[in-house]
Amino acid sequence: MKTPIDVACVGIGNVGRSWAVVFARSGLAVRLWDHDPSALGRATDSIAAALADLKAYDLDLDIQEAMSRIRGVDSLEEAVAGVSYVQESAAEALEAKQSLFRRIDLAAPADAILASSTSAIPGSAIFANVEGRARCLVVHPVNPPHMIPLVEICPTPWTAPDVVKAARSLMSDVGQAPVTLAKEAPGFLLNRLQWALLGEALHLVGEGYCSAEDIDRVLTQGLALRWAFIGPFEVGHLNATGGLAGYFGGLAEAMRRVRESLEADYAAPPELVERLHAEIAGRIPVTAIPAHQAWRDTRILGLRAHLADAAARPSHST
Amino acid sequence: MKTPIDVACVGIGNVGRSWAVVFARSGLAVRLWDHDPSALGRATDSIAAALADLKAYDLDLDIQEAMSRIRGVDSLEEAVAGVSYVQESAAEALEAKQSLFRRIDLAAPADAILASSTSAIPGSAIFANVEGRARCLVVHPVNPPHMIPLVEICPTPWTAPDVVKAARSLMSDVGQAPVTLAKEAPGFLLNRLQWALLGEALHLVGEGYCSAEDIDRVLTQGLALRWAFIGPFEVGHLNATGGLAGYFGGLAEAMRRVRESLEADYAAPPELVERLHAEIAGRIPVTAIPAHQAWRDTRILGLRAHLADAAARPSHST
Repeated sequence: MKTPIDVACVGIGNVGRSWAVVFARSGLAVRLWDHDPSALGRATDSIAAALADLKAYDLDLDIQEAMSRIRGVDSLEEAVAGVSYVQESAAEALEAKQSLFRRIDLAAPADAILASSTSAIPGSAIFANVEGRARCLVVHPVNPPHMIPLVEICPTPWTAPDVVKAARSLMSDVGQAPVTLAKEAPGFLLNRLQWALLGEALHLVGEGYCSAEDIDRVLTQGLALRWAFIGPFEVGHLNATGGLAGYFGGLAEAMRRVRESLEADYAAPPELVERLHAEIAGRIPVTAIPAHQAWRDTRILGLRAHLADAAARPSHST
Repeated sequence: MKTPIDVACVGIGNVGRSWAVVFARSGLAVRLWDHDPSALGRATDSIAAALADLKAYDLDLDIQEAMSRIRGVDSLEEAVAGVSYVQESAAEALEAKQSLFRRIDLAAPADAILASSTSAIPGSAIFANVEGRARCLVVHPVNPPHMIPLVEICPTPWTAPDVVKAARSLMSDVGQAPVTLAKEAPGFLLNRLQWALLGEALHLVGEGYCSAEDIDRVLTQGLALRWAFIGPFEVGHLNATGGLAGYFGGLAEAMRRVRESLEADYAAPPELVERLHAEIAGRIPVTAIPAHQAWRDTRILGLRAHLADAAARPSHST
């Protein structure tokens, strides 16, 4: 059992609130602050609702106890005073984030780790002029982090290696699944992989190869039935008698032809986006999105419970 | 209830045998033929084992009855005589397939549909010189088709529209999940999407951004927790308050930066493939691949059962 550390969630929109759930359910004390004082009341209700959702899959979760560890405060300085870790999840505006981190850097203990949830702004742009930039990095969640465990640990050129290690370790301790980038890349890992696939999907639909519905089906009835529990390299390894080397060797020629004709960097024309939006909004009207988001989140929790139950691998002597 | 049609499986390696399971479990009579007469005995054992695996998730499946619908025959001509549908799954060799389809075209009833399971060869190359090429097309399964429902219906420029429709309809009738290409594309849909993602994954690992293990984690702990039940367009639609148009609009600038730096067409150097193979073979030795394949297939069946149970969507008035 590790000693609980105090954590500050700075910015408590959807992302910040979900982070508060992640920390509080793991026994950490959480302080919340937002530049908009009215955000606190909304956050408390939403955090309680999220914990209730989680309770269905985690019978040991004590909602009251978790809630008692969360406290809203009136100033940024009060939020970060004495904490070991700060998770900033304010709106995606560069100057606002730069200014927030300069203030946090002055007010937080010297050994606290300062992390941004940003998905779109490089950490090096946010932290360049922060004096303590060696302790700053991006810790990018997938939304919402209390449902989806993946977290991307993204250091800047100035981030100290110990800070990277400690952030990754904290994320494991609170039940997330961290991955680490060795250097900055736009989109980190998840969005690069997601948008490579999405770009080629847009290419296929945009150039008349197939319908959008069929693209969705390729994922739900094909690719993701393996990716839900084994990644793309292991898929290849298990698809060829010679393992991964056999997979790449045997398919080299087919892969070359596909590679040459891929357009994963396809820039979708606005008409295509409009058409796709109209198609999907016909099935799921924009007003129904919150209901479908709730459905999606329930599905994710159920899926994770199933995957955790089914996880045992064959044993073998190596 | 449709009238059962007779089906011929031509070539009964792993893929052909799995097709036989798909057809027989749905009540169709199946004839098996392979150029290697010794393949028949192995096929029968493997089909019985596959049906036993399925039985665990489909209590109504009558294994004996399904087995009784499958019959091996001695000649290609006998296999296709009188059938409504032929599924060819011979080795990936162009000339052998061309010759097979010329023979099948002569021996099968005039209204039978003739399909190839090829993944690597364009249908237009196989069927160009087949007289009845209007009734020929590629019907590409994901291996093994009795576990993974996605099937790609890939017409050539000569395939009659009614043949495309009938093939798609047959696939739905036997419980598969068909998608249709409007024109030929190397890799069809699934491998194009898979290899766009895999190419960018190779780029990220090859250029030192992250480890292969972290790539696998991005899928299993992140992306696939949604893609298992909603495709990439719906993921975007549910990720923005404005729906899909809001997703593309709000992220346009971030997407542009990622798009410009993607290398989904990354040609992995041989040293990288060797290193990745060594890494994964350290966890899963090549000799253990069959055991892990069996584990994977059990996981897929369990996952599909979970997903089918959990499928109900919120209702809403549009």
